[in-house]
Amino acid sequence: MTQHRDPVPEALVFNADGLLPAIIQDDESGEVLMLAWMDREAVRRTLTSGRVTFWSRSRGEYWRKGDTSGHRQYVRSVAMDCDGDTLLVRVVQLGAACHTGTRSCFTEREIAALVGDPSAPEE
Amino acid sequence: MTQHRDPVPEALVFNADGLLPAIIQDDESGEVLMLAWMDREAVRRTLTSGRVTFWSRSRGEYWRKGDTSGHRQYVRSVAMDCDGDTLLVRVVQLGAACHTGTRSCFTEREIAALVGDPSAPEE
Repeated sequence: MTQHRDPVPEALVFNADGLLPAIIQDDESGEVLMLAWMDREAVRRTLTSGRVTFWSRSRGEYWRKGDTSGHRQYVRSVAMDCDGDTLLVRVVQLGAACHTGTRSCFTEREIAALVGDPSAPEE
Repeated sequence: MTQHRDPVPEALVFNADGLLPAIIQDDESGEVLMLAWMDREAVRRTLTSGRVTFWSRSRGEYWRKGDTSGHRQYVRSVAMDCDGDTLLVRVVQLGAACHTGTRSCFTEREIAALVGDPSAPEE
């Protein structure tokens, strides 16, 4: 009998809702495109299909990025963080990652912030 | 009487625990360094002090990155996403961003994944 090993690492930690955040980064430019959520099954689909799948918290359903918009995300690599509770997915992004039509969900949404000075005396 | 305007945008959306995820990105290299959580006060401190401050969920306290380790994060810019529920903070990172000593929390934590082919016929 063939044993099918689960491609989802045991070390992954999902929150009380069974989800973890996935950061989506443009593999070529390094631009951070968006953050969305995955449950274990969405992680499994992302790892095994070459396309990024999320769990939509608002719609309560799986959401394979680009199926409606055509703005598909092709997986280049996936990494987890030291706590196993966040994923970093590097992708080839077709078109706009954001549903508002901007390349990234962070485009033109800067918040005024004081810039820190690494050469300042340590407080 | 002087009015002190809150630097934290009204549009920010915090979860049921009063937190939102902040993605920390190296401003120079574009490397994604880590993800951690901020409450409204941590966002306020991050926007106004030039140093990144998180809320530690495990310790239940504010955590100004680098105060213990020396691996300080200096703010270069802050942006929110289209839903206002995630921040992207670009930083100058001193030393290792990860408490395990690696530059990023995702360093050497790759998960085996099928690489997607953007030129394949659409399914």
